[in-house]
Amino acid sequence: MTGIVKTTQKNLMVFSGRANPELAEEVAALLGTELVPTTAYDFANGEIYVRYQESVRGSDAFVIQSHATPINQAIMEQLLMIDALKRASAKRITVVLPFYGYARQDKKHRGREPISARLVADMLKTAGANRLMAVDLHTAQIQGFFDGPVDHLMALPILSDYVRDKYGHESLAVVSPDAGRIKVAEQWSERLGGAPLAFIHKTRDIDRPNETVANRVVGEVEGRVCVLVDDMIDTAGTITKAADALMEAGASGVVIAATHAILSGPAVDRLKACAAREVIVTNTLPIGDDCQFDKLTTLSIAPLISRAVREVFEDGSVTSLFDGRA
Amino acid sequence: MTGIVKTTQKNLMVFSGRANPELAEEVAALLGTELVPTTAYDFANGEIYVRYQESVRGSDAFVIQSHATPINQAIMEQLLMIDALKRASAKRITVVLPFYGYARQDKKHRGREPISARLVADMLKTAGANRLMAVDLHTAQIQGFFDGPVDHLMALPILSDYVRDKYGHESLAVVSPDAGRIKVAEQWSERLGGAPLAFIHKTRDIDRPNETVANRVVGEVEGRVCVLVDDMIDTAGTITKAADALMEAGASGVVIAATHAILSGPAVDRLKACAAREVIVTNTLPIGDDCQFDKLTTLSIAPLISRAVREVFEDGSVTSLFDGRA
Amino acid sequence: MTGIVKTTQKNLMVFSGRANPELAEEVAALLGTELVPTTAYDFANGEIYVRYQESVRGSDAFVIQSHATPINQAIMEQLLMIDALKRASAKRITVVLPFYGYARQDKKHRGREPISARLVADMLKTAGANRLMAVDLHTAQIQGFFDGPVDHLMALPILSDYVRDKYGHESLAVVSPDAGRIKVAEQWSERLGGAPLAFIHKTRDIDRPNETVANRVVGEVEGRVCVLVDDMIDTAGTITKAADALMEAGASGVVIAATHAILSGPAVDRLKACAAREVIVTNTLPIGDDCQFDKLTTLSIAPLISRAVREVFEDGSVTSLFDGRA
Amino acid sequence: MTGIVKTTQKNLMVFSGRANPELAEEVAALLGTELVPTTAYDFANGEIYVRYQESVRGSDAFVIQSHATPINQAIMEQLLMIDALKRASAKRITVVLPFYGYARQDKKHRGREPISARLVADMLKTAGANRLMAVDLHTAQIQGFFDGPVDHLMALPILSDYVRDKYGHESLAVVSPDAGRIKVAEQWSERLGGAPLAFIHKTRDIDRPNETVANRVVGEVEGRVCVLVDDMIDTAGTITKAADALMEAGASGVVIAATHAILSGPAVDRLKACAAREVIVTNTLPIGDDCQFDKLTTLSIAPLISRAVREVFEDGSVTSLFDGRA
Amino acid sequence: MTGIVKTTQKNLMVFSGRANPELAEEVAALLGTELVPTTAYDFANGEIYVRYQESVRGSDAFVIQSHATPINQAIMEQLLMIDALKRASAKRITVVLPFYGYARQDKKHRGREPISARLVADMLKTAGANRLMAVDLHTAQIQGFFDGPVDHLMALPILSDYVRDKYGHESLAVVSPDAGRIKVAEQWSERLGGAPLAFIHKTRDIDRPNETVANRVVGEVEGRVCVLVDDMIDTAGTITKAADALMEAGASGVVIAATHAILSGPAVDRLKACAAREVIVTNTLPIGDDCQFDKLTTLSIAPLISRAVREVFEDGSVTSLFDGRA
Amino acid sequence: MTGIVKTTQKNLMVFSGRANPELAEEVAALLGTELVPTTAYDFANGEIYVRYQESVRGSDAFVIQSHATPINQAIMEQLLMIDALKRASAKRITVVLPFYGYARQDKKHRGREPISARLVADMLKTAGANRLMAVDLHTAQIQGFFDGPVDHLMALPILSDYVRDKYGHESLAVVSPDAGRIKVAEQWSERLGGAPLAFIHKTRDIDRPNETVANRVVGEVEGRVCVLVDDMIDTAGTITKAADALMEAGASGVVIAATHAILSGPAVDRLKACAAREVIVTNTLPIGDDCQFDKLTTLSIAPLISRAVREVFEDGSVTSLFDGRA
Repeated sequence: MTGIVKTTQKNLMVFSGRANPELAEEVAALLGTELVPTTAYDFANGEIYVRYQESVRGSDAFVIQSHATPINQAIMEQLLMIDALKRASAKRITVVLPFYGYARQDKKHRGREPISARLVADMLKTAGANRLMAVDLHTAQIQGFFDGPVDHLMALPILSDYVRDKYGHESLAVVSPDAGRIKVAEQWSERLGGAPLAFIHKTRDIDRPNETVANRVVGEVEGRVCVLVDDMIDTAGTITKAADALMEAGASGVVIAATHAILSGPAVDRLKACAAREVIVTNTLPIGDDCQFDKLTTLSIAPLISRAVREVFEDGSVTSLFDGRA
Repeated sequence: MTGIVKTTQKNLMVFSGRANPELAEEVAALLGTELVPTTAYDFANGEIYVRYQESVRGSDAFVIQSHATPINQAIMEQLLMIDALKRASAKRITVVLPFYGYARQDKKHRGREPISARLVADMLKTAGANRLMAVDLHTAQIQGFFDGPVDHLMALPILSDYVRDKYGHESLAVVSPDAGRIKVAEQWSERLGGAPLAFIHKTRDIDRPNETVANRVVGEVEGRVCVLVDDMIDTAGTITKAADALMEAGASGVVIAATHAILSGPAVDRLKACAAREVIVTNTLPIGDDCQFDKLTTLSIAPLISRAVREVFEDGSVTSLFDGRA
Repeated sequence: MTGIVKTTQKNLMVFSGRANPELAEEVAALLGTELVPTTAYDFANGEIYVRYQESVRGSDAFVIQSHATPINQAIMEQLLMIDALKRASAKRITVVLPFYGYARQDKKHRGREPISARLVADMLKTAGANRLMAVDLHTAQIQGFFDGPVDHLMALPILSDYVRDKYGHESLAVVSPDAGRIKVAEQWSERLGGAPLAFIHKTRDIDRPNETVANRVVGEVEGRVCVLVDDMIDTAGTITKAADALMEAGASGVVIAATHAILSGPAVDRLKACAAREVIVTNTLPIGDDCQFDKLTTLSIAPLISRAVREVFEDGSVTSLFDGRA
Repeated sequence: MTGIVKTTQKNLMVFSGRANPELAEEVAALLGTELVPTTAYDFANGEIYVRYQESVRGSDAFVIQSHATPINQAIMEQLLMIDALKRASAKRITVVLPFYGYARQDKKHRGREPISARLVADMLKTAGANRLMAVDLHTAQIQGFFDGPVDHLMALPILSDYVRDKYGHESLAVVSPDAGRIKVAEQWSERLGGAPLAFIHKTRDIDRPNETVANRVVGEVEGRVCVLVDDMIDTAGTITKAADALMEAGASGVVIAATHAILSGPAVDRLKACAAREVIVTNTLPIGDDCQFDKLTTLSIAPLISRAVREVFEDGSVTSLFDGRA
Repeated sequence: MTGIVKTTQKNLMVFSGRANPELAEEVAALLGTELVPTTAYDFANGEIYVRYQESVRGSDAFVIQSHATPINQAIMEQLLMIDALKRASAKRITVVLPFYGYARQDKKHRGREPISARLVADMLKTAGANRLMAVDLHTAQIQGFFDGPVDHLMALPILSDYVRDKYGHESLAVVSPDAGRIKVAEQWSERLGGAPLAFIHKTRDIDRPNETVANRVVGEVEGRVCVLVDDMIDTAGTITKAADALMEAGASGVVIAATHAILSGPAVDRLKACAAREVIVTNTLPIGDDCQFDKLTTLSIAPLISRAVREVFEDGSVTSLFDGRA
Repeated sequence: MTGIVKTTQKNLMVFSGRANPELAEEVAALLGTELVPTTAYDFANGEIYVRYQESVRGSDAFVIQSHATPINQAIMEQLLMIDALKRASAKRITVVLPFYGYARQDKKHRGREPISARLVADMLKTAGANRLMAVDLHTAQIQGFFDGPVDHLMALPILSDYVRDKYGHESLAVVSPDAGRIKVAEQWSERLGGAPLAFIHKTRDIDRPNETVANRVVGEVEGRVCVLVDDMIDTAGTITKAADALMEAGASGVVIAATHAILSGPAVDRLKACAAREVIVTNTLPIGDDCQFDKLTTLSIAPLISRAVREVFEDGSVTSLFDGRA
């Protein structure tokens, strides 16, 4: 046969945007490599410039970028990084999204709205993404927004192991701050040995219909340490009101646990002031020094991401990381 | 300017597959037209043949097909109908799905599963669908699986108006049979004047860990007529057990309400036998004579679909049908 | 260079739907492996569920499914299997179609029909198929319906070798039951040492125009054993009438040979009753016990498929299997 | 409602490349309009330049181009014309192909060939074609190569009416020059009142296996005027040998009829010299003065195309032009 | 024929993002309508929310957004607006880009860079844009980045008419600040009656190779008023140095003219301080109060855009706005 | 794990169309291999037939074709070759374009023109190209017309090294024959140690406005040997007039250098007759014997292409071939 034959090799290369480089470095280190040196800066009018300082031809590329604030820059930077990899002949491009932006706009809540989470998936695809890896998507259906493989990682084991170790000796209840997310609470409950479930139902007070909304606790929480769980903490309004409502309802304590610490605007002050004993999050998003406070505990997501990257690179099983879940 | 100028006209044409022709005929009649005469039959080996008996060139086509059992035939027939419309130069093809098949497989519950609901959306698109219209999608995120406009109609006003008229004088509670669907129950609660919420939490009994799952009622239902709500009734196992659990928990009565009456296998027997006073559904799916029973009430979805089709044809507002929802 | 380098490996994995598992098992065994363990069942309303029990990440996947009756289930199951492979990061997906459904609707016979065979190709592509492998497509043009590589395997050598060995000592003629398929008969003729050709021309009797269609034999068959060839036997109406017409025209015997044994409805009774001595088919479709009869001979297609799969996996030549044909 | 409302108009505009302008002008004239003035020329290195001299914005554009020799220029010119229309905001682009180039390469005859007819369809689509209109495709399956509406026009009524009027009083037979095209002959037979069918079977002479191929006539032609039918006449080798073979087999005369008069190389000389009385073709391809000869009759396809264009523009029925065929 | 027939109407609707609402309002007013009321705001973490307050179903939508600083927000907002229009069934979506962001990254200047301008075009397409309208693209080739119609508007007549009216009595030269943009200068020269051309050549001083780059004036400028032209002014470094170099080279005066006034960072100070008498720009980008200065003249682009929108809506000719250019 | 594991190999195969086989053979020889044996010929009506004589399954294919005259055949042949490779399961297809046809139509110069260079990119993609490699694209933006990796090779080092070696001792100037290509001249200037720049400005003579266009030299050329540089020489009209104008302006000599020697029509006569001492080109296009003349120097591009092919095959860096450019 005519031609030149050669054994094929593959090369794992890890890239990071500027949104959460500490996390990306930790992932690379755990993999036993380093981030590919990359030039990235903003022009005077805000246009982003990126360029890789090494050849990426034929690489199995993993592009880590959390969609942290300023979120539109973070997304655009990642899109440009993907485009550059595609045009520089990377063999396969896996987009790693510790936090997937616009995930809450995953449907039309009312007419004439965008479905922004689908748009993000389409843009990643258009730019050249072959695969996605994401941590705790706001709804699991977002997997279906991308036309290709999605590795959906879950922080639940990391968070719940921590809670069980520290609070497992107490009488616990798992509480969802919102009717829409009780399914997640149910998973927590299972992880915590079948702790009872409750949720907060926001409702207009029937007796005083013109007044404001009340937070009614549905389920039994009295005398229990309530683990208030959610996927993200943004301005922390709902969750801190829920914490207070639980104490009023007779809870013996409240612990807040969430994967994504967005911590916008008044979040830190609210969390400090609220009734919760401890606030447990991961580092899917960067947490600045000004967002640190005493009762905040940050667990690292990097070991999970690095294991998943390795499985993907080596054609192993990501599903096995979750005992059949993923 | 060279050429021949003519005023453009548009022609609304309504088509139906063989899954639920009564509903389609009712929709057409309410619009003031008839179904386009269509030949459709199965070859000996099960291959489906379809052909339109009239020119459809330039039409604004609405292809109504419920994904009723046998569901794969229903889907394939609709795909073939769309393909035939596309190739016969229909101008715009709106697929009307009173019941969207495979909607429950809207994410990977475990690794190495398909996301079947996305696949259905993609197949409709590939066949030639320009737009979708669907009633009460299992999850609203399915809107985002289709790359184009989706008119999402809701049966809630039809069902809840009926319940309010008939049971509104009693003390009500709204109950979700499952932790994952409390959001829908919350909408019902709002519609029913703020009735309290509850849900059924399936759990392993902590005291007898090796035994079966128990249905724990979370929320207050004692002395109330419970409106047990869901989007569909398939084998009716979960919902009838929930009805019984509610009675055990002290409810004064149970009414079941759901949009889609799949009524597979043991469903009818279970519903007849269960504690519920009345089972209220719509005709998004055909309900055969053998599935009728005394306490079953069927409300027609045809007026809603026909109004939506008219708005779409006349470039009106579907959102307005739902007071700003859709 | 930054990164982690590894030699690339590829892994051949064979999957089967539920339509013809015996054939798939035979193919896997000939390759020296086993079918990948797969969960597949129908939900109560007919929705199909599939899941692979092993990691398929990075695999070179071959998904075998004959489009047997009930055909729409078989197709949908295969599409779901492909979607699951795509989302589980299979590296390359080759769809193996021993029998390609809807192949007879490969053009618009009349206006406002679908081109169902193209639709099937597009759906396979949309689900995630990278390549097709098919046996004896109804028309070779169907290769062009798929946007990608198609390995078109031919059962002709298997069937014609058998016929030559058994009947080669007699005076043969090759007969097409239909004017549209004489090209295939011509290939048979060549394989059988230049045996004369004939075909059956269905025509209205000119003398009795209001009467039924007559089967006129065009070509010389008198005193010859006629090998009546077609790609498939569905209800067997045309081919058994052809067999009888040949005997009336003075043939000394008739042997029927076809690749695909659909054998719908009255087929078995007709074949038993007709003038043919022997009916020779392959196992591209499953042949149930109730379809067995004395003069039916079934040759296995598995050796051909397994050889082709091996060539594809090893980057060999499928063309070489057919002496330059394919 | 905000905005400016206006009644929509549509404008039929007819465009022609340089391959067969006479035909296009005839079509435009029959429609009651003129070709849109267009600049088209070749640069020194053969690159083609096209530009429309009028605004085409919003037009319902029909781009007529026969794929005449030099065929690659004809195809490329049409692609450029389509691209220019797309970028100039034509509303709908229908590509009119009196002769579809590369149609004979509609499958892989052997491994490692292109499927050129599919490639042509894909290129038209990529350039911007929304719809195709074609006359007598080499195989009807080519309709399925294009992902969109194809209006397949048939010259058969034009040709067969002419033959019936002129030769209908004689005893006729319909003959296919090739085993692969008897289906077309069958349609002719039906049109000519059930005239008997025959075909020419090219075969190696069994008695002299090392010698050349013989043309064996299969079917009865003795004493009949044979209408030798095909879709196209290229070099006229096969068809003229068939004509001679028919005379040898006792035919009382031969008439050749075909839609597409490619007439390459030796075609004219062969046709002049052969036994046929008359050669009947259409003007789907331009026939130069040097290709005219006494027994050549050319029927115009323009009335058929213009009627089809009008039906398409006015959302009428093209199918009706063929009594339910198309 | 079955169905309901209606005359088609089209409705021009104009939308604006938050980047340059004054320009959009001016365009709408010139068209005789108003902007469609739209809700748009940022969530706490920077995610953008948009929703239209009126039905947009069936509209001929024009979405005006300048890619002003903060540019990534402006782009993302426009993408979300397009997605919302697509999903709300707008009939046609024309994206109006007074300033097209990332246009300078229109090729890979070095390896492993993105081609950001193509990415922007692809994202607009993916979101749902059917057509683009843009003013003075950085390079005309960007038209080819979009797969669809692009109306390329030119501010040149507006700017050059102003310059001719004010400076036409003086002896002029047209100067490009950069070797790459002399083509534009050539168009200016033609507009200004054949004024001589020059350009600034940045070069290393051969005599002092280790020193900085010198601006060498190529062409004759002595005693002339130099019109220094460019498509955009960003930080104004190059253009102000060019102005000074021209004065040193003996120019009698300098006037700067550019379409897009980005005016980043030190731009205003540099322009104030430089030798130019007047700086003439348009309002394709918003110019804040802090960017105003005495010698700055802003001409409105709104009349040009509104005329083009009207031509597009009415199927007129945009080309005619430019005497055959566009 | 179920399945059969094998180490992956890749096989570099080089293919050539009929446009410039000498160049392709030189490239293959430099790589240490041979061209894959390929059948290619024209049918009587000009349709092209191609077929590979060896299996290409799994190959890393490089398809070399210059778009030489007759250019449309060259393009179509390459498209057919790509289609055949795709359908024969080549693993990756890199299209090598020593000369990219239609590159000058890279934008709409006026309304209602095609953007032919984009169309060529789209057709290559549609046929199955995964990657492009091209030499000296007319404008670098054409890289962005292709949705995938483009390796853009530059002949500049080859040409400028030759010029420097031969003419570097003289006083040089670099001249662009056209205002639009001074950027390229600037790169030459840098390569030639900072030689001064000039360009030819075509202008109407202000004093005699009704007369023809004059070629005004902008920049200082007196007493210098002018290196007149362009990307291609087609009819050589512009460049030979420029050469003469430079001599009139006092140049001491002229040398012409260009990558692509199209040499259409009068080109050779004009070049012979013009004032230039030497004309230096590469063999990206075949130069026939009738196009040879004394002062023509042809440098081979094959070493550059072969090195780039090797880097691509071995996942090396093409950028490194250009010191960080590409």
